[in-house]
Amino acid sequence: MEHPVIVEVTRGNRVESRHRGMVVAVDGDGEVILSSGDVDAATFPRSACKAMQALPLVESGAADAYGFGNRELALACASHSGEPEHAALAASMLAAAGRDAGALECGAHWAFDQPVLIRQARAMERPTALHNNCSGKHAGFVCTACHTGTDVKGYVGYDHPIQAEIRAVMESLTGALLSHDDCGIDGCSIPTYAVPLRKLAHGFAKMATGTGLEPVRARAARRLIEACMGEPFYVAGTGRACTRLMQTAPGRIFAKTGAEGVFCAAVPEKGVAIALKCEDGATRAAEAMVAATLARFFDHDEAVRDALLSQANRAMHNWNGMHVGDIRVTGPLAP
Amino acid sequence: MEHPVIVEVTRGNRVESRHRGMVVAVDGDGEVILSSGDVDAATFPRSACKAMQALPLVESGAADAYGFGNRELALACASHSGEPEHAALAASMLAAAGRDAGALECGAHWAFDQPVLIRQARAMERPTALHNNCSGKHAGFVCTACHTGTDVKGYVGYDHPIQAEIRAVMESLTGALLSHDDCGIDGCSIPTYAVPLRKLAHGFAKMATGTGLEPVRARAARRLIEACMGEPFYVAGTGRACTRLMQTAPGRIFAKTGAEGVFCAAVPEKGVAIALKCEDGATRAAEAMVAATLARFFDHDEAVRDALLSQANRAMHNWNGMHVGDIRVTGPLAP
Repeated sequence: MEHPVIVEVTRGNRVESRHRGMVVAVDGDGEVILSSGDVDAATFPRSACKAMQALPLVESGAADAYGFGNRELALACASHSGEPEHAALAASMLAAAGRDAGALECGAHWAFDQPVLIRQARAMERPTALHNNCSGKHAGFVCTACHTGTDVKGYVGYDHPIQAEIRAVMESLTGALLSHDDCGIDGCSIPTYAVPLRKLAHGFAKMATGTGLEPVRARAARRLIEACMGEPFYVAGTGRACTRLMQTAPGRIFAKTGAEGVFCAAVPEKGVAIALKCEDGATRAAEAMVAATLARFFDHDEAVRDALLSQANRAMHNWNGMHVGDIRVTGPLAP
Repeated sequence: MEHPVIVEVTRGNRVESRHRGMVVAVDGDGEVILSSGDVDAATFPRSACKAMQALPLVESGAADAYGFGNRELALACASHSGEPEHAALAASMLAAAGRDAGALECGAHWAFDQPVLIRQARAMERPTALHNNCSGKHAGFVCTACHTGTDVKGYVGYDHPIQAEIRAVMESLTGALLSHDDCGIDGCSIPTYAVPLRKLAHGFAKMATGTGLEPVRARAARRLIEACMGEPFYVAGTGRACTRLMQTAPGRIFAKTGAEGVFCAAVPEKGVAIALKCEDGATRAAEAMVAATLARFFDHDEAVRDALLSQANRAMHNWNGMHVGDIRVTGPLAP
C-alpha cells in the first residue's frame, strides 16, 4: 500500500521535501477512529512503547519497594536528553536497589540535542551509561530484577526473564503474537518487536482507559501514564517534543517518541490513543504528525488545539534568522 | 509521478524505514544514461551546486590575483565541517583580499559532525562565521567582489552583482531559466534556484567534459573540479561522504552534497555527471544513492566499484557495537 504524503517541507514558494507516513487512532475497544496508510503493517515501535516496557517495574511491586514517585516512573518511560537531572535520577534509582551504573547494559552515547551535547563536552571527558537516553528504562529493568530476585546480568537478552515478561505484556496489550522473527535489536540492546500500528495504538488505548485490563495492570498503566504527564521533563528534556506536547495540556496528553519516526500518544479524557510512523524515519515529520493528530481531539478547546497546530506547522529559519520555509502537515492531516 | 523506493533501512529481518528518490545521469550532450523518478521536477540543488557558484571566482581572475591553489578552490566549493584547517583557510582567503570574518554574511553555526562539535565546544565559546560550512564559498564571493571592484556589502542579496552573475552562470550551464519564482533562500542566506535534476546533471556534465562551454569557462570548470578531487578534505572534512567518495578513486570522482538529500557527482573519464535527491531530504539515503550510482560507472574497475558499493550498502551498529540492521540500495539502484 502507498503511504500518503503527510508532511511537506517548503522553501520559498516550493515544496522542497516530502514525508509519507501512516497514522491510526483507536479507542479502548480497538475501534478505529482515524486511519491513513497501511496501519496493519508490522512496525518497530522502538522507544515509543517504553511505558509498556515499564509495566513490570510497577506490577512487580519494585517501584513501591524502592519508593519511586512520578519522576522515577517518568524516567523509566523516557528517552531523555542526558541532562544532569536525568543522569542523577537514573543513578538514584539504581542506588535504591543497591546497584550503580555498572549494572546498566545499554551502552553510552553523547546527547543528541546540540545544546546539551555542548554542555556535556565541556563538563565531562565522555558520557557514561547514565547519560544514555534509555538509562531510566534500564534502571527500571535492573530494579525489577533485583526486587524479584532475578539475576540482573544479561537482562537485555531475548531469553532473560525481564525481556520474556515484557514480551508477554506487549502480546497481551497489543494482541499481537511476538516471536524471534518479529524481533530486532534496539539501540540500547534490548529486543524490539514489530507490531502493526493499529494494535500498538490499541495497547496504549487500553493503558489509557483500562478497558479489558485486569485491575493490577489497569492501575499500573494509569500510574505510568499519569507519571509521564505529571513530569514531562523526565520523559524527554529541555525543548524536546514529548516534553512540549505534554506541557501543552498538562495531565491531558501522553506522548512518547521512538526512533525512526515513530510516535505513540493518548488523550485519556477522550479514551483514545494514537500510533504513527513516518515511512522514512524522520523525526521532524513524526513530530508534526503527532501534534496534528492530537489537535483533532481538542476541537472543543481552541487554546490547546491551536498550540498543537503551531507545533504541527512551523517556520524554519536560517543561520541569520531569516524565514526560509516551513514544515506543514498536508493530505489526510491537513487542518 | 511516484518516486520509487531506492534505499531501505533494515532491522533484524525486516525493513524498518524506506526512502524514495529520483536520480539521473547524463553525458556532456545531455543524453540521459540512467534515470529513475521524476527527474524533470524542479529541485533546489542547495550546496550541491557550489562548484557552479565558484566559477566567477576563477573566471574573474580573482583566484589567480590572490594566489589561490587547489585547497582554496576546494574550500570555495565546500560544505566543510568547520574543522580548524577549514576555518583557518577561509580566514586566509579573506586576508588575501584585505578582509576578515566581518565581511562574511553567512551567519555562524556549530559543526554538524559530532566529534568536531565536541572539539569546538571545548575550544571556543561560540563558533564564528569562519566555522559556517559555507565560509569558503562566501570567502570566494567576497574575493570576487573585491577583485572586480564591486561593493562587498549585501553580496548575499538576489540583486547584488555577485548573485546576478551566479544566476547567469547557472542558467547557461543548466539551460533552465531562473526567476524569483524559482528562488528560495539558502541556509547561508544566498539565493538557491529550483532546477530540474536532469538539467543540473547536464550542467555538471558540461563542467566535467567542457562540452559546449567557451574556453574560459571550460578551463575554470575543469580547474574547480580538479581542485575538489585533489583536496577532498577541504570539500567536506574528516569522515564525511564527499571526502570519502573522492578519496575512493583519487582524481576520478567529483562529488558534492547539498542539504535536504541532494547529491551531484561526476566521473570525468566517463564524461558523465549525476544529480539525485532523496524525496524526504535524508542525508543517509542520498549518500547511499550517490555511491551506488557512481559504482555503475566503475564496472571495469572492481576495487573502486566494490569500495563504492560498500558505501552504498552498510551495516548499522548500536551503542554496544551490535549489528542491528543495514542501509541498502534497492529497486532501480540494486546491484
